[in-house]
Amino acid sequence: MSHLLTGVPASPGIAIAKAYRLEMEESIPQRKEIEDKAAEMRRLKEAIESAKVDIDRIREQTLERLGPKKAEIFEAHLFLLDDPELTDAALARIEREGVCAEFALYDVAAAIMDALRSMDNEMLRERAADVEDITRRVINKLEGRAHHTFSELSDEAILFAKDLTPSDTAQLNMDYIRGFVTEMGSRTSHSAIMARSLELAAVVGAGTDASHIRTGDTVILDATSGKIIVNPSRNQMEDYSERKRKYEDDVLRMKSYVDRPSVTADEVHVELAGNIGGIDDLEKVLANGADGIGLFRTEFLYMGRSTFPSEEEQYSVYKHVLQKMNGKRVVIRTLDIGGDKELSYMQLPQEMNPFLGLRAIRLCLDREDLFRTQLRALLRASAHGKLAIMFPMISILSELREAKRILNEERIRLEQEGVMIASELEVGIMIETPAAALAADLLAEEVDFFSIGTNDLIQYTMAADRMNESVSYLYQPHHPVILRMVQLVIQAADHRGKWVGMCGEMAGDASAIPLLLGLGLHEFSMSASSVLPARELLSRLSKQEWSRLAVEALSMSSQQEVLDFVNNQLRSEA
Amino acid sequence: MSHLLTGVPASPGIAIAKAYRLEMEESIPQRKEIEDKAAEMRRLKEAIESAKVDIDRIREQTLERLGPKKAEIFEAHLFLLDDPELTDAALARIEREGVCAEFALYDVAAAIMDALRSMDNEMLRERAADVEDITRRVINKLEGRAHHTFSELSDEAILFAKDLTPSDTAQLNMDYIRGFVTEMGSRTSHSAIMARSLELAAVVGAGTDASHIRTGDTVILDATSGKIIVNPSRNQMEDYSERKRKYEDDVLRMKSYVDRPSVTADEVHVELAGNIGGIDDLEKVLANGADGIGLFRTEFLYMGRSTFPSEEEQYSVYKHVLQKMNGKRVVIRTLDIGGDKELSYMQLPQEMNPFLGLRAIRLCLDREDLFRTQLRALLRASAHGKLAIMFPMISILSELREAKRILNEERIRLEQEGVMIASELEVGIMIETPAAALAADLLAEEVDFFSIGTNDLIQYTMAADRMNESVSYLYQPHHPVILRMVQLVIQAADHRGKWVGMCGEMAGDASAIPLLLGLGLHEFSMSASSVLPARELLSRLSKQEWSRLAVEALSMSSQQEVLDFVNNQLRSEA
Repeated sequence: MSHLLTGVPASPGIAIAKAYRLEMEESIPQRKEIEDKAAEMRRLKEAIESAKVDIDRIREQTLERLGPKKAEIFEAHLFLLDDPELTDAALARIEREGVCAEFALYDVAAAIMDALRSMDNEMLRERAADVEDITRRVINKLEGRAHHTFSELSDEAILFAKDLTPSDTAQLNMDYIRGFVTEMGSRTSHSAIMARSLELAAVVGAGTDASHIRTGDTVILDATSGKIIVNPSRNQMEDYSERKRKYEDDVLRMKSYVDRPSVTADEVHVELAGNIGGIDDLEKVLANGADGIGLFRTEFLYMGRSTFPSEEEQYSVYKHVLQKMNGKRVVIRTLDIGGDKELSYMQLPQEMNPFLGLRAIRLCLDREDLFRTQLRALLRASAHGKLAIMFPMISILSELREAKRILNEERIRLEQEGVMIASELEVGIMIETPAAALAADLLAEEVDFFSIGTNDLIQYTMAADRMNESVSYLYQPHHPVILRMVQLVIQAADHRGKWVGMCGEMAGDASAIPLLLGLGLHEFSMSASSVLPARELLSRLSKQEWSRLAVEALSMSSQQEVLDFVNNQLRSEA
Repeated sequence: MSHLLTGVPASPGIAIAKAYRLEMEESIPQRKEIEDKAAEMRRLKEAIESAKVDIDRIREQTLERLGPKKAEIFEAHLFLLDDPELTDAALARIEREGVCAEFALYDVAAAIMDALRSMDNEMLRERAADVEDITRRVINKLEGRAHHTFSELSDEAILFAKDLTPSDTAQLNMDYIRGFVTEMGSRTSHSAIMARSLELAAVVGAGTDASHIRTGDTVILDATSGKIIVNPSRNQMEDYSERKRKYEDDVLRMKSYVDRPSVTADEVHVELAGNIGGIDDLEKVLANGADGIGLFRTEFLYMGRSTFPSEEEQYSVYKHVLQKMNGKRVVIRTLDIGGDKELSYMQLPQEMNPFLGLRAIRLCLDREDLFRTQLRALLRASAHGKLAIMFPMISILSELREAKRILNEERIRLEQEGVMIASELEVGIMIETPAAALAADLLAEEVDFFSIGTNDLIQYTMAADRMNESVSYLYQPHHPVILRMVQLVIQAADHRGKWVGMCGEMAGDASAIPLLLGLGLHEFSMSASSVLPARELLSRLSKQEWSRLAVEALSMSSQQEVLDFVNNQLRSEA
């Protein structure tokens, strides 16, 4: 009988193969007294050195296969093996207590892991897996046992394990392994992140039910939805074989769009950009062939730390991003805190309605010192690429003028200091208040571009907090009223020759893209993983056709009517 | 040398006259032993009865001069004189301790006043003045002294007192007294309320500085601004004589508008209505000749109590208001709680942004039981006048449809029960979310009228909490964006033959009225005291002219530009 398990979809894909169970070496080294303390300490040191050689090899393989970012973890492992808290402490145990090297290392490592696992910080908890990984590796060396190499694999398999260490995951034999399932872990575990880089189907956190699956069981792994079907029926096999084929075709088809232009069926070019929160997100934006960055949320530079980032720190981040994007446009939004985003080291007033309070540009105009530091860093970085500066939460013209005045003062000051500043620096604003949308004609005169922030624009237009469950029914991106706002903004900008982008979630939504294209949106900025599906979709759409259809949608009376209309239209075109 | 004092303007007007100081009888009765306890108790009872006769006379005079509402206070005084806590306690003191009646009464009353004055509740603190008033009156009787009668006054005077009791104020000799100043008190004191009813210039809370002003000093009292000028210069006298004349002319001119129609210089009729919170506000609406009630805020019926008002209670209030308005339209808004308005007996969820949360119609659709009770009361009352039911905070069409569906269910149910319901009952909505303004064309198909709620509409459009000081600069009723919204709403309604009103503060603002008229607003609902100035203003405006000017204002770039434009225009017309 077939049966079904579920887990967390960690990396998309569909695999059909026999299960291969990776038994964890969970034996706990026993405390053994030894005679020759000096010899035992030498034994431990040699095992550590030997482990380092292995890890260095894995690091190099990973560097080659997955790039420097993913290889970093093994540099951390090498570093940990030199950490006196671990190795010196283990050696001291041998010397002081005359215990065997296996026990000494294990006992010291176990205490460190316990401490890390009790931390409140997700990242530190994850470090426990690293300590475990290297400890296990050294103990294997001491016991003369090989670390997993999956060498016995000679056929396609889906790997099942309680958990996977970073080095396990990095060494997966991609000739045979088609996916993996772990009982523990979350979407942010190292193994999950690795799987996405390897484009390997993976489900994590499947729980102890998954421990009953044995090597040799036939398994369907649907990692797009998190399903694991054990011993599937003939019908299931046929169904999923078909789905697998289709999924792989789609992936290949999407990939073929990486280097293509973002262009509609009737040859209209638009821009498909990525949203990022920091340097870490760059790689994915580049891998998905985005035409630029439409939103860099700089508030993440200010978070998870205890002081404001300096001008120098910010400058180096902005410069790095601009250089990496190599001449493609990078829209950097100035600090957007307040509302639901706080900084632990900055006292903000308690507000009754923080979403309607002192946030984003309002706060920056109130705290000019912060604002000037960021603007200086941006102006200095502008020489290294194609920068566009974007102010968030502008409601009225005087706020824009004030922000531009301060920007200009800093520009003049830097120029007097002899600093190079790009001559073609663009300056724009987000349109996220109804006031800005309705006054877009006035604002357009004084900016280079708009970017519509739908997440906020929808919540203010509907007067409904998008985080509040009891009014979430009012969060309706496809409501004709929202489309009317978008139209107003685009028409106002078009009339003055300015471009309009969108960086809310709506911009990456397949059922919104046709309408936005039809309304004349020029730039769509979204999470990197949406770029290729969007490009593929665009290639099938006619802008001329959708200009006509979008106007029809504007006079509909509900979001549902619009959604049905778009989906019917897309289906009939397919 | 002239000198200037200031206080709280409690009742507008300008007076110029000699000061007359009302010396308070502040002597504290001494404890005296008496022989014949029974005789002393009889003496107190007789004094109380005699005081009651006086109070009853004052009550009747007040009823005649100022109406039943103002006479109520003296019914309360009569009631207090029968309160065993006061009179029985005083009699008991005489019997037990053999003290004189003056001391017994005073001592008991002082303890009660102390207790009331320490209360957190403004209304209870005000009651202390009532206890003092009646106690003083009885003691005067006991001591054979007359209560103030201002009998020595034979010329115009401005009265100065530490404080005025309700009975002092009610008995002011209006032949001679032109205004009063008290050292204590606030705008909500009885004396302040009385002064407004008597249309007598009054400044309260002027502080101890005012105690230096003596009978016979010449005084200018400018109660419109709260200024008191003692021994004014010749220039000041001339200046204020002129101002006084102008003010009195204005008042007379305003009064002449009470029975006139609300019509522009070019003969366009509009409607000037009043906003009310309950039955108490009706009198003022009628006295100011409002054309109807444009907003009855029913949430006040639900406040300051411990349970929901029953259908019966609500019915009798709605019926009373409809009957009093005698065929003029009464727009009653269904319950608008949530946001910043809470009910002590109703558990509402804690929300991060209550202004963007479960409020008004959203809450009513979630708590249908409450909503149905109110709708039944309204439907039943509809037979007694010209009722219009208005739903607040509608954002999308489906909310309106749901509210109307429930209303219709209750109507059918009542009809089946044989209850009379007005056949011409109007149903409309407030336009207070940007979504409703932008979808006014869709909503107009399914309502009889709109009323624009500018207080909320402005805060959502600007995304700025109107109660939050740090973003209050964004609360801009005259901003072109707000005017554009108003225009959108009026055009959408006009096109479908529906009328549009406004019930936010903006509707009574003299610098907004010309623009609103120009944009085609049909009904302006405001606080009762703004109705006559608005009618006078309208009579000087040309709708045709302002239609043209309003369109000009729509393309301006700031509130300041609009304000300057309107004020210049009004000045040049004057």
